[in-house]
Amino acid sequence: MDPPSVFEEYREEVDAELRAAFDGYSSPLYDMLRYHLGWLTPEGRAGNGTVGKGLRSTLCLLACEALGGDRWAALPAAATVDLIHNYSLIHDDIQDRDLERRHRPTVWAVWGEAQAINAGSAMRQLAGVALRKLVCRGVSSEAALRASWLLDDGCLRLIEGQWLDISYEQSLDVGVGEYMDMISLKTGALMGCAAELGALVAGGDEIARAALRRYGLNLGLAFQIRDDVLGIWGDGARTGKPCGSDIRRKKKTFPVIYALQQSASSEELRRLYSLPVVKGEDVDAVVSILDAVDAQAAARRAAEEYRERAMAEIAPLSLSSRAQAGLEEIAGFLVERSH
Amino acid sequence: MDPPSVFEEYREEVDAELRAAFDGYSSPLYDMLRYHLGWLTPEGRAGNGTVGKGLRSTLCLLACEALGGDRWAALPAAATVDLIHNYSLIHDDIQDRDLERRHRPTVWAVWGEAQAINAGSAMRQLAGVALRKLVCRGVSSEAALRASWLLDDGCLRLIEGQWLDISYEQSLDVGVGEYMDMISLKTGALMGCAAELGALVAGGDEIARAALRRYGLNLGLAFQIRDDVLGIWGDGARTGKPCGSDIRRKKKTFPVIYALQQSASSEELRRLYSLPVVKGEDVDAVVSILDAVDAQAAARRAAEEYRERAMAEIAPLSLSSRAQAGLEEIAGFLVERSH
Repeated sequence: MDPPSVFEEYREEVDAELRAAFDGYSSPLYDMLRYHLGWLTPEGRAGNGTVGKGLRSTLCLLACEALGGDRWAALPAAATVDLIHNYSLIHDDIQDRDLERRHRPTVWAVWGEAQAINAGSAMRQLAGVALRKLVCRGVSSEAALRASWLLDDGCLRLIEGQWLDISYEQSLDVGVGEYMDMISLKTGALMGCAAELGALVAGGDEIARAALRRYGLNLGLAFQIRDDVLGIWGDGARTGKPCGSDIRRKKKTFPVIYALQQSASSEELRRLYSLPVVKGEDVDAVVSILDAVDAQAAARRAAEEYRERAMAEIAPLSLSSRAQAGLEEIAGFLVERSH
Repeated sequence: MDPPSVFEEYREEVDAELRAAFDGYSSPLYDMLRYHLGWLTPEGRAGNGTVGKGLRSTLCLLACEALGGDRWAALPAAATVDLIHNYSLIHDDIQDRDLERRHRPTVWAVWGEAQAINAGSAMRQLAGVALRKLVCRGVSSEAALRASWLLDDGCLRLIEGQWLDISYEQSLDVGVGEYMDMISLKTGALMGCAAELGALVAGGDEIARAALRRYGLNLGLAFQIRDDVLGIWGDGARTGKPCGSDIRRKKKTFPVIYALQQSASSEELRRLYSLPVVKGEDVDAVVSILDAVDAQAAARRAAEEYRERAMAEIAPLSLSSRAQAGLEEIAGFLVERSH
């Protein structure tokens, strides 16, 4: 399934805003960030990497337009949430020891951990710099201040989620409830924040902002469950992420947690996930167990459920049919996508 | 030399503000931060560690009072800059592979790198949360927004400085100019930011704010040069930092850069600093070379010069004699201190 046309439509504007956030930042430190975003090669030549789908920025702009706001005013917030996402990826790759992302070596694989920590932290700060431009687009100081608080909260939840995710690697007692808590923080919070920021810029009231935040949050849950599926059964050549790496890291993804709860598969899966290292044919064995209990279908059902919840959150807002269709299209894409 | 009494005077207030910033943050993630701040043991029992001198918070409060501001209003900013400093320490310790800080194991030494990255990042975000309280103390939205921008800029410079510091480990072509640029970013920027935040809360005009920022910046340079001296010739039992670790990491500290520029010492020092690893008696040999060219005295002269520059920056402000004395006392302490 191809991304909805709205991704393409917004892509250029968000990209220009992202590049403008780097204006005046010329130290080679920032070239590591430009590399991560696909704009440069490690040697500093023009790069041909991709910057990702821009899911969070799209969500932010859609939410703004859904409430009748001008998306030009929301572009700084849109660029900001994409930068925050990329900040978390640079640090995640260090933490997970992932060597490849989007078909290219990760930042730490090129420059080492110490400098990759700096690159991620700088990306976090540049996100704050990008957000400043809100006040140049007619957003009041009060709303701009609130936006920066929303962003801080979103980042803090994201870090809490990453902390939980790593903690869970060492544990087999992770149920669906714990998993949902973890992905609410790790993935849901920033997507909720993205939608809420768009609503804030549009001047939405408390009720509309909260509804769009919950829409984004639930969509984030659906997205993450789909991501878990693609990490196991997806085509690595399309996702840009080595297949099976979640299993090797003993990540408590949705399919694994589902299978741990099925009596038919629990014992053998526990044994495999108790090994010091899961690799080679043990990875294949884990996938076979997941297939045997049809964990993929269970994950699909769960993702679908959160997609429906997302749509239910915005139903009371009586949006225009165009806005409604846009938010529905992106929700559908997130649970159907193959990369 | 003991710290000026103002440190003691502000300590309790800043500590209460710091602890309040943690209210409601109960995940074990935050216990790593509480451990770093000396409030908890690794097992979560009440700790007896120290939180550091609180140099940056003191600077912030002094600057506020110097311009006639109410220091109660500046306390959120004071807590914030101390938190930012501690955020950078958690990440620095990972990057420098330092196992001990303030006489206790570093966060990464206890919980591993992956979770220590999260701990540092969470500390950065909690600093933002602490800063929010400015608006509860009569600071306008405009000024609070400006404060958060100043903080973002300060953090970005700090990261740039850390990037340079690590880059310089691989190079012998680092002159005094490059060194001063590096510490302006790594140490000076946050101290300038601390003083400027205090001035901002006090309602100081552009000129007063800039003067106090430059006062803080120059003081930061004096402080860092003194820190370099203590890292080589200081008493590890008092500084809380293993002696010689800067040399083992081939850090381009002021005394080393000075000695590299003296023809009597340059060749042998270059040879030692070109070894894959500097350790054991090679560390002693480096110290002997530094002693032979009296690099310690050169560093003292440089620190004294920046202390004088700091004082010259605030001379035109015609501060009260009490405020002037306070800012002079802290400046004197920074270049004389033995820990």
